[in-house]
Amino acid sequence: MKSLALITCLAAILVSGCRPQTEPAAAGKASQMTTDPLPSWNDGKVKSAIIDYVHKVTDSSSGSYIPVADRIASFDNDGTLWAEKPLVQELFAFAQAREMVTKDGRLAKKQPFKAVIEGDKEYFHKGGEKAFVQLVDATHTGMTEVEFENAVKNFFTSATYPPRNVPIWQITYQPQIELLNYLRANGFKTYICSGGTVEFVRGISMDLYGIPKEQVVGTTFNYKYVDSSRSIMRLPGLAHFNDKEGKPVTLQRYLGRPPVFACGNEGGEGDVEMLQFSQSSKYPSLQLLVNHDDSTREYYYQEKTNWSLDEAAKNNWQVISIKHDWKNVYRAEKR
Amino acid sequence: MKSLALITCLAAILVSGCRPQTEPAAAGKASQMTTDPLPSWNDGKVKSAIIDYVHKVTDSSSGSYIPVADRIASFDNDGTLWAEKPLVQELFAFAQAREMVTKDGRLAKKQPFKAVIEGDKEYFHKGGEKAFVQLVDATHTGMTEVEFENAVKNFFTSATYPPRNVPIWQITYQPQIELLNYLRANGFKTYICSGGTVEFVRGISMDLYGIPKEQVVGTTFNYKYVDSSRSIMRLPGLAHFNDKEGKPVTLQRYLGRPPVFACGNEGGEGDVEMLQFSQSSKYPSLQLLVNHDDSTREYYYQEKTNWSLDEAAKNNWQVISIKHDWKNVYRAEKR
Repeated sequence: MKSLALITCLAAILVSGCRPQTEPAAAGKASQMTTDPLPSWNDGKVKSAIIDYVHKVTDSSSGSYIPVADRIASFDNDGTLWAEKPLVQELFAFAQAREMVTKDGRLAKKQPFKAVIEGDKEYFHKGGEKAFVQLVDATHTGMTEVEFENAVKNFFTSATYPPRNVPIWQITYQPQIELLNYLRANGFKTYICSGGTVEFVRGISMDLYGIPKEQVVGTTFNYKYVDSSRSIMRLPGLAHFNDKEGKPVTLQRYLGRPPVFACGNEGGEGDVEMLQFSQSSKYPSLQLLVNHDDSTREYYYQEKTNWSLDEAAKNNWQVISIKHDWKNVYRAEKR
Repeated sequence: MKSLALITCLAAILVSGCRPQTEPAAAGKASQMTTDPLPSWNDGKVKSAIIDYVHKVTDSSSGSYIPVADRIASFDNDGTLWAEKPLVQELFAFAQAREMVTKDGRLAKKQPFKAVIEGDKEYFHKGGEKAFVQLVDATHTGMTEVEFENAVKNFFTSATYPPRNVPIWQITYQPQIELLNYLRANGFKTYICSGGTVEFVRGISMDLYGIPKEQVVGTTFNYKYVDSSRSIMRLPGLAHFNDKEGKPVTLQRYLGRPPVFACGNEGGEGDVEMLQFSQSSKYPSLQLLVNHDDSTREYYYQEKTNWSLDEAAKNNWQVISIKHDWKNVYRAEKR
């Protein structure tokens, strides 16, 4: 939502997608044929760590037992539950800009709409963060909450993901869907803690992940309650940017304590603080970090600083290698 | 938290309590002897409206049916779930100030601690809102989240309510406890949307109301995540004041849509917008407003403007007369 890297990617979307991608998922009915709760996960250290953790914290005779009320799991979304190259929210911002021009032709002469319509990638390259914030403000605010939610709904009805040309649900990760289900079956309340704007993610959270709107937290705009229409207006400018150190702050605000289970991904250094905060729980906790190391089936991208992976090693977090730990990557069947 | 009326009351606490009060609750085992889900409510228009509403929205053959996932109820706390003359949070602020002086004697020479220790009600009268904000900042911030929560826990262990000299749980309203239980038994997720600061209310929400921390929203301070200690620091100054038009904003932020059921109280004009917002739900909704009209068993206080009651009449909200609708007022048995 803010870095120059994202802006570069944004500009790339204007012309095509980011990087090609192959091998759709092939999960299927494994879960019905076996008692394995995580059929799309290869046997190994990470899968064992997850299952061992869930066993011990749900065993009331264990010293590690966690009461159901405190079994809270928090997942990042982009790069953790679905692919992030490009970010789906960027696709939405462009689609929304085009949609707005269709409804009001005069916008085609105004920036940032003009640049979107004309595929003017230089505008976003040169404008940097300022141009991107302008695009987000123009497409995500200045309307009521209900109007925005309708726009999100319309987008997801027909949107496809450029690199693979598949519907958006097909870029969600099958192993993570199984993990969410497994946790819920064991009394965990599953949350999304996303860098994406919250109402955008809420637009698909139940449909794609079985997570209700009130269990999604994310980046927020300022809201204003309009008495006369009893509606919420979305105002320009971010109220909270939910990335990095913003994540523990949001989790405290919404949950009132650290989640005992947290899963993020390396790539943008965005989830380290969430995982640290989870580890500060008074209960036994588990932290997972998705490593994007599969250039064939998904993507290969690593932080220049290696910070997330370094922190994982230092703090004994489990690193999920997409290449080695996931039997299947993408979802084969819709929820 | 901000008005001069509150400051006056605050000063009053310094010398005694606010107003005397009689007749403790006498609820008991009625709920075990009958199928009446609301035994502490007198039969009448309001009780019927609640039961009729719950019946119709949980009947899948009814045109008014609401899916379980969207059955969300939001309750104000002060004056709606427990008594608010004085506010429990004010008692805490004073107790916390005294506790802090006990730990660090030097504070006794500094304001606002000096005024608290010396029972100097003129300080708060003359200082107005500024002095009150100073007291809240001094007692609620400048510590980690865990330290603050421990202070809240200690307070509730021994705190009593001045006018009646009873433990705090005995100033919660028995009919509302029954209503919360009734709603939950019918698939509703119950939330508190309080003008009080969120972590303070979370300190008792499960114990007193069966509501988990993550279902409490309220007034917030700014938080800062401290990487080195993995803790949340509470910073001076409010991030959000959760009263009046602040309530729909918070509900949108946390729930992602209006609650279908909302209950507030008249007295401070604080809940009108929450009830309006609830009524904007796409589902059939119900709004309740507690009227403090019982000077014998609870309190009698009315808004000079009569705004809340006027809005109730205009919008067909149910007005709960404590005098006529509640058979018992206070809880007789701890949860």
